[in-house]
Amino acid sequence: MPSPLSEAAARPDPWQLPDVSDVIVGVVGGTGEQGRGLALRWAVAGLSVIIGSRDPARAQEAADAISAATGTVVGGLGNAACAAAADVVLIAVPYEHHRQTLVDLADELAGRIVIDCVNPLGFDAKGAYALAVPDGSAAQEAALVLPEARVVAAFHHVSAKVLGDPEAAVVPCDVLVLGDDRGATDVVQALACLVPGMRGVYAGRLRNAGQIEAMTANLISINRRYRAHSSLAVTGL
Amino acid sequence: MPSPLSEAAARPDPWQLPDVSDVIVGVVGGTGEQGRGLALRWAVAGLSVIIGSRDPARAQEAADAISAATGTVVGGLGNAACAAAADVVLIAVPYEHHRQTLVDLADELAGRIVIDCVNPLGFDAKGAYALAVPDGSAAQEAALVLPEARVVAAFHHVSAKVLGDPEAAVVPCDVLVLGDDRGATDVVQALACLVPGMRGVYAGRLRNAGQIEAMTANLISINRRYRAHSSLAVTGL
Repeated sequence: MPSPLSEAAARPDPWQLPDVSDVIVGVVGGTGEQGRGLALRWAVAGLSVIIGSRDPARAQEAADAISAATGTVVGGLGNAACAAAADVVLIAVPYEHHRQTLVDLADELAGRIVIDCVNPLGFDAKGAYALAVPDGSAAQEAALVLPEARVVAAFHHVSAKVLGDPEAAVVPCDVLVLGDDRGATDVVQALACLVPGMRGVYAGRLRNAGQIEAMTANLISINRRYRAHSSLAVTGL
Repeated sequence: MPSPLSEAAARPDPWQLPDVSDVIVGVVGGTGEQGRGLALRWAVAGLSVIIGSRDPARAQEAADAISAATGTVVGGLGNAACAAAADVVLIAVPYEHHRQTLVDLADELAGRIVIDCVNPLGFDAKGAYALAVPDGSAAQEAALVLPEARVVAAFHHVSAKVLGDPEAAVVPCDVLVLGDDRGATDVVQALACLVPGMRGVYAGRLRNAGQIEAMTANLISINRRYRAHSSLAVTGL
């Protein structure tokens, strides 16, 4: 039986994350508020970023706006070309287009790290609520549709308003990163850590992604009650 | 149409919470780690606290230990007498005893503020995971079993280890408080704020409690990866 000390020595340091400065990030649905906001932050951090959209002209337009705002060169392409050109692909589409988008891009996404940040929510007069998702979560749905991709769930709770605010030099929050492939979750944690103020925190396997997606409904309730742009942090780390 | 200004003036300040210094708190399942930890902190804050247990002798024993540790007088009673004597009752039993405990105490809990902190979790070789709850969440189950009580969901993510640690003068976390009765959620928020470091934050209606309960599985994953006693904070407030 190994001593507790040798066991501790054998465990990898969870804060030791890979260098991702050469990663090319594609953002499918990059003309939406959330995708555009993260693309902007990654461009500022010096990454190569490609905006994807169903309409390549709209992608180019969004890319040009980020390029102009950041003094970097951001590309704009159709979703399939964006996915094919990137190492890591963020899926930032509304939930109603989630499954079909992934089905359409299955070939291009094979072998890629795919970040799912989609929140399956409904809205009524009482506010937001979590939708029942047949596969448990949008991220698990992605893993089933894309058996050859390395699916990671992350970036559900980052405020698009804060991401897009040029006055906000820092985005103070912890990004909860979930997945069953430790190499992939490490890369996504490192991508989160590129944004000043953000920490990428491993927060479990994909089977525990449903509540993370659903919790966006609670943040919407908090934002309404406190008139805030809230996010989450993990204490005790 | 009212101006935005008058509308803002009419909205209550979400940080203005009632004085709860005279509230009597009962803790059903108060011999467990989570219940005992919160009872200890409320006793330190000067509240009248009663520990409840199925076995009154065990309740008295736990109460005596808290009394000795804090220099206060904490009561110990059977669960029904505890619930009957308290204004606010925390239900801190394992999920497998949740429904039956509430059914048994339905008369005593009528009219009370009932705080449900129960996390319906399963465990296997891969760690913790969220159980499917027929009513959506333990808290919604409580509301259905106790139609005459004012059910609030809260205190799911507070580390029992930190609560019970005499070295931890401060418990740094935000307690997410959910419910459909604003007066009741305000009281529970105020009870959270009595513990140094804790803030009680309104986080939505009971229909959004399921993901809050389930998220405890993610904190368990975080604790395992980072060897920590983690909790949550809301940023941007």
